[in-house]
Amino acid sequence: MESTLPTTRETCQAADAADPLRRFRDEFLLPEGVIYLDGNSLGARPRTSMATATRVLEQEWGTGLIRSWNTAGWFDLPARLGDKLAPLIGAGPGEVVITDTTSLNLFKTLAAALRIQQVSDPLRKVIVTERDNFPTDIYMAEGIVDFLNQGYSVRLIDDELPLEAALGADVAVVALSHVNYRTGAMWDMTTTSSLVHGGGALVIWDLAHAAGAVPVDLTGAGADFAVGCTYKYLNGGPGSPAFIWVNPSHQDRFWQPLSGWWGHARPFAMEDAYEPISGIGRFLCGTQPILSMALVECGLDVSLEVPMAELRAKSLALTDLFNALVDARLGDHPLELITPLDHERRGSHVSYKHPEGYAVMAALISRGIIGDYREPHVLRFGITPLYVGFTDVWDAVDALFDILENRLWDTPDFRERLAVT
Amino acid sequence: MESTLPTTRETCQAADAADPLRRFRDEFLLPEGVIYLDGNSLGARPRTSMATATRVLEQEWGTGLIRSWNTAGWFDLPARLGDKLAPLIGAGPGEVVITDTTSLNLFKTLAAALRIQQVSDPLRKVIVTERDNFPTDIYMAEGIVDFLNQGYSVRLIDDELPLEAALGADVAVVALSHVNYRTGAMWDMTTTSSLVHGGGALVIWDLAHAAGAVPVDLTGAGADFAVGCTYKYLNGGPGSPAFIWVNPSHQDRFWQPLSGWWGHARPFAMEDAYEPISGIGRFLCGTQPILSMALVECGLDVSLEVPMAELRAKSLALTDLFNALVDARLGDHPLELITPLDHERRGSHVSYKHPEGYAVMAALISRGIIGDYREPHVLRFGITPLYVGFTDVWDAVDALFDILENRLWDTPDFRERLAVT
Repeated sequence: MESTLPTTRETCQAADAADPLRRFRDEFLLPEGVIYLDGNSLGARPRTSMATATRVLEQEWGTGLIRSWNTAGWFDLPARLGDKLAPLIGAGPGEVVITDTTSLNLFKTLAAALRIQQVSDPLRKVIVTERDNFPTDIYMAEGIVDFLNQGYSVRLIDDELPLEAALGADVAVVALSHVNYRTGAMWDMTTTSSLVHGGGALVIWDLAHAAGAVPVDLTGAGADFAVGCTYKYLNGGPGSPAFIWVNPSHQDRFWQPLSGWWGHARPFAMEDAYEPISGIGRFLCGTQPILSMALVECGLDVSLEVPMAELRAKSLALTDLFNALVDARLGDHPLELITPLDHERRGSHVSYKHPEGYAVMAALISRGIIGDYREPHVLRFGITPLYVGFTDVWDAVDALFDILENRLWDTPDFRERLAVT
Repeated sequence: MESTLPTTRETCQAADAADPLRRFRDEFLLPEGVIYLDGNSLGARPRTSMATATRVLEQEWGTGLIRSWNTAGWFDLPARLGDKLAPLIGAGPGEVVITDTTSLNLFKTLAAALRIQQVSDPLRKVIVTERDNFPTDIYMAEGIVDFLNQGYSVRLIDDELPLEAALGADVAVVALSHVNYRTGAMWDMTTTSSLVHGGGALVIWDLAHAAGAVPVDLTGAGADFAVGCTYKYLNGGPGSPAFIWVNPSHQDRFWQPLSGWWGHARPFAMEDAYEPISGIGRFLCGTQPILSMALVECGLDVSLEVPMAELRAKSLALTDLFNALVDARLGDHPLELITPLDHERRGSHVSYKHPEGYAVMAALISRGIIGDYREPHVLRFGITPLYVGFTDVWDAVDALFDILENRLWDTPDFRERLAVT
């Protein structure tokens, strides 16, 4: 069997030794004995995070107290960190803020898009999104149409109803995930944005599984809105605040309904009428969790050091390797690759269906190979080139081989529990 | 002049020495040389916060990684900490969650209230709130009616239009701040809730300046909804997540429109139709900032140790002392008390208007007496009995006396800058 292998563990070790991105692994603190293939769900902890947390707690909160809103720059964090993130998604300065959650930011962009259409083309009352989208994106769309209750509706695209067929004259906005959370399939952002615009609709991109993982050029693609999260490939920490980008051509057209004081033109004038600030700032709402937000900078600082082309090349090499090793060693097992093979259509994780996926992932995790499981039957492996290497991929597939060949997953324990739901 | 004083510094020192709550000051880390009278804006740092942050960063994020959603209880934090907070506001277990921001939680409760009325009494389309409310509460109400755009509107009560007069047959919901952010004036929650119900409307209480500061009994008052923040008197840290309570009789009536996956009955089933979980959980939306949320527990643990009746008695004694000292020593200055003298109508801060309020507060802050300034012309002093003592009040008024008597505020520097906007 070894003769059919595309490579050897020694070759993987040599590839790691020659990898120009290898040094970035030292920017993260990973536990001994763990191969972490879940950075697409929760990124690893940057080395600098403890020092940042200590600074915020001791100097800024403890000593600066209320003064730190000014002296430590807390007021400016959403915009300052948004500016830092902007180049990673093809946005300009002043176009992005870090705030709230991806779900809430999606609500804001959906509301803004519906309002734009209400004025320019009021018969457009359909939100199109993907049946296979991350569920919260669908739920937020359902929430907004249920709330508006004026003939608005949600239309789900799938194999039976592809995007082209869904783009009728009634469509206001299309909300798509650039990289699918389950399959890792990636839309061509430029072609798809043009297609949506050609149909008279606006397009929102959810970059949760894309930002920091694949090249993104919102401006070049002519996108209208984008939202995404900072705790996956951007390593901001558990539940760190999300981001929102609105094409400058739309920013000042309307105010979004989550119109809290942080989006006001003069928040401390304490006026009783809302007047939104010009620009992306009007997509802010309330006071943000400063400690969780401050840590976003640690992850961004690492991502900004890495040339995206090199990151992408390594990501594709690693996911190719994963697929090739699974093909060579596990072809006899009921593992079904659901991630596109085409580089142009693949994000930075690979997923397989296996009838006992839940128990198999539990068995892997018990060995320190941490991927995750997603219904239905999906084993998901996040390949984060900042801290995953070629030997890690070898060892992960090797463990998977051992578990499947010897049915090590087939214990009551692994069938019943999974640390990662 | 000394003969007219209500007390002496020595008596204040004796009062501190005899104070049964004095020991709680050691639960907080305050900088040397600071008298902190802004706990109503940002609470002080609990002694245990660094250990909690270290645990979350090193053990939970760093070592546990994605597994910590289960093994460290991250999934349960909003509900578990909500249960901890509940007794401080007269709520029961399973009735409160910690999540998002006060502004966003107000949006959820406004949306739920409007929906309830839409079904039971569809002509009720007015949101009543206070012209003098914290502005974000007004702005969120304006945002929701602008978005719905179906005849909904906002009606502001003030001296010309008191609540009684505003309660017409068109009113759906009344949103009030239990303690006013600027004046410290407090509504009688029971009487007022009854008044609103008598007018056929629902009532939402914003407890931002009340929770942890004054006795609150939402259940006893028959309130419908409440929101509030954890970073003021509850000492959760800068921008720590807010809370939301919905009377159990309303919780399952509708789903609120910010219907993210955290409010779904089966979030990990990845279904494409939203089905809200029963109970307060449906007021959750997206993934929360875990580090900022975890620190909420440090502050709650202190507040839960303190008998509310003793806390309230000390708060009133301190604010009485503040007023008495200002009356005795500063009667000749243009200081106008805007906080009610009546104990039943006062929260836990005192506020004075002064024509040069901005510069006066800057001068105070430069001496380490940290209160804050609010437009127009308001000097605001938060009296947090957990870490403010009688001698602190003496020293603060003494500094104010010196600054006003000697016009020490009257420098270009103090006129132009203020660390706390």
